[in-house]
Amino acid sequence: MSDFDRMRELQQTASTKIVLLVMDGLGGMAMRPGGLTELEAAETPNLDRIAVEGALGLSLPIAPGITPGSGPAHLSLFGYDPLHYVVGRGVLEAIGVGMQVHKGDVAARGNFCTVDSAGKIIDRRAGRIASEAAAPIVERMAQVNVPGVATEVRPVKEYRFAVVMRGPDLGAHIADTDPQQTGVEPLPARALEPGSNKAAEHFNAWIHGARQAVAGEPKANAVTLRGFSTDPALPQFPEIYGLRAACVAVYPMYKGVSRLVGMELEDVQGDMPADEFAAVARAWTRYDFFFIHIKKTDSRGEDGDFDGKVAVIESVDKALPTLLDLKPDVLAVTGDHSTPARMKTHTWHPVPFLLWAPGTVRSDDQTQFGERSCAHGGLGTFPTTQVMPQLMAHAGRLIKFGA
Amino acid sequence: MSDFDRMRELQQTASTKIVLLVMDGLGGMAMRPGGLTELEAAETPNLDRIAVEGALGLSLPIAPGITPGSGPAHLSLFGYDPLHYVVGRGVLEAIGVGMQVHKGDVAARGNFCTVDSAGKIIDRRAGRIASEAAAPIVERMAQVNVPGVATEVRPVKEYRFAVVMRGPDLGAHIADTDPQQTGVEPLPARALEPGSNKAAEHFNAWIHGARQAVAGEPKANAVTLRGFSTDPALPQFPEIYGLRAACVAVYPMYKGVSRLVGMELEDVQGDMPADEFAAVARAWTRYDFFFIHIKKTDSRGEDGDFDGKVAVIESVDKALPTLLDLKPDVLAVTGDHSTPARMKTHTWHPVPFLLWAPGTVRSDDQTQFGERSCAHGGLGTFPTTQVMPQLMAHAGRLIKFGA
Repeated sequence: MSDFDRMRELQQTASTKIVLLVMDGLGGMAMRPGGLTELEAAETPNLDRIAVEGALGLSLPIAPGITPGSGPAHLSLFGYDPLHYVVGRGVLEAIGVGMQVHKGDVAARGNFCTVDSAGKIIDRRAGRIASEAAAPIVERMAQVNVPGVATEVRPVKEYRFAVVMRGPDLGAHIADTDPQQTGVEPLPARALEPGSNKAAEHFNAWIHGARQAVAGEPKANAVTLRGFSTDPALPQFPEIYGLRAACVAVYPMYKGVSRLVGMELEDVQGDMPADEFAAVARAWTRYDFFFIHIKKTDSRGEDGDFDGKVAVIESVDKALPTLLDLKPDVLAVTGDHSTPARMKTHTWHPVPFLLWAPGTVRSDDQTQFGERSCAHGGLGTFPTTQVMPQLMAHAGRLIKFGA
Repeated sequence: MSDFDRMRELQQTASTKIVLLVMDGLGGMAMRPGGLTELEAAETPNLDRIAVEGALGLSLPIAPGITPGSGPAHLSLFGYDPLHYVVGRGVLEAIGVGMQVHKGDVAARGNFCTVDSAGKIIDRRAGRIASEAAAPIVERMAQVNVPGVATEVRPVKEYRFAVVMRGPDLGAHIADTDPQQTGVEPLPARALEPGSNKAAEHFNAWIHGARQAVAGEPKANAVTLRGFSTDPALPQFPEIYGLRAACVAVYPMYKGVSRLVGMELEDVQGDMPADEFAAVARAWTRYDFFFIHIKKTDSRGEDGDFDGKVAVIESVDKALPTLLDLKPDVLAVTGDHSTPARMKTHTWHPVPFLLWAPGTVRSDDQTQFGERSCAHGGLGTFPTTQVMPQLMAHAGRLIKFGA
């Protein structure tokens, strides 16, 4: 029996409410040996109080040593083994900029590149053209019309963009057009199985149009496409767990992943933690489960801005009473992965995890929320895919296994 | 290679003795945040002394968040992955009341229900009839004779009973007769494959007789059967580990599970921990491995009786010198799952584990046996299925893997 089948079999109805509060890239590092991490340095009286009442641990999003991308990291939090449930790169790029990818749509990641007069690639990233310069070029490509299908194109960042094609009978088994080297022409879109022939033809038509639209550019005068993929048809979170589930997030990527697993999206007015918690409060009666995503911990970590990341954590702590006043039965506070300011990037380090559940959590002896205390916590170090079963258990939503 | 194959390959003969002392439902919780658990509150000078000399950890019977039933929890302690080795519900119910289920026998869980004059179920649990009222009704059903097979029936609790049918050519692939709703008649026993046709017919004949036997009852005037199953033909513990193994238990369920894995049952005079330890002492020379089961920690936990559970733990501690005087080479003290008095039921919380093995255990820095100290113990948090390999290793009964 799969883990999901076990959840389906053991779930029971309850009136309890679960909140999963994710500070993106929460896990950190000291800037020097013996120092404090961002989370340890932050003044977090509310988190520390619930740490006393709750239990701590460390979670491993994928496996020891493996640095997760945002997609897999969130799937893992939602209980999906990220090594098994793979969302295509094209889909992740598209949902990351707010496009929708439904069943039968085909999404791809696009790169601008520079070709010489013979059409051979001389720069696979078009001189890393700035986002501001790329936007109007993407705008021109968005006008390209391919008969029989609808195409949507959006800029991502610098030389990157995303394409989604919608129409009848499209397949996504298409090889990358990026030859991964210079001195050769971009490859045509080539179907890897007959069911994708039609889509490949349409993409070649689109590439033809896009090449005309960008032909006069000094740098971004050609394109390559990679990661052709479609809606992965993931098992649906509300059905697996028997939870009416809402996503409260500001950034498109996290809304997109939540939508792929079947959560409802709730609007947020503003982009501060307090704004997101206010959105939770407005929707409180309509859901059993709230996934709240705080982006800026990760952003400051990627900036290498230790103090900035500390400040974001403190702003979450300050707004926390709004959440606690709703009296959730289970509140987990964690990250999707680590983004230590010291390393300015996602890392593989285990992620601090705090579980608070009045009456059902076994308190440990830790008194503040931080990486070192989590390493001593009562929950131990565990795979992130086990977060959801833990939340379900503490919410009284799982019956006993076996007699 | 399966874990069992590895045990078979690596085991070596030794004269060492292993004791696995299981206090049922040992894991607990504080009654309020910051308080002590049952095990932490108990005065346990003997356990604390061997905790100093040994090593502690926390074990996970099934998986994080999953609350184990008694059957799966014990299989896990014996090294059987409880998600793989599933013992049927009928078998568990039958062995729980002391019936034997051998290869070819078919066991089922029975419910009394109430039907109206049209034969339609109006109460699936017969008004939760009291155990005392149910016993004589079960007694009448036990007289029902089905030609060609022998049937045994015993009361379980309240409206529940167990049936075992014995005879030639019986199969256990039979659908539940409980329609899981009111307003309809109980279903007939229906074979799910041809090899179970004969058994289904016999069960229908038995149900017919049982219905006649209970027809005059105001509440328990009909029956439903569920969980048809037979001896799961588990790999046998003595062969897997090369251990002559004894079960010293008072309650039928635990004797039953031990018998299913091939342990010998040793009689106990009395039902106190000291009585069970005395039984171990009498049988000491005849076995390599003793599984000792203490029930009342779980019973007091289910009662919500914190102090009562503390007292049971203390009575085990007090009797412990009897065991220690036998000079076991390896002694593990643990539970099969948690039953916090605060929650009055089995729970998913990890289980305290103490490993004592003079000369082979690597002591940690913990000085008393309790949930918080176990969370800091040298053994970490580990799946319960890894208990047996650990005991085998510490008993010098496993050779090196690879050259």
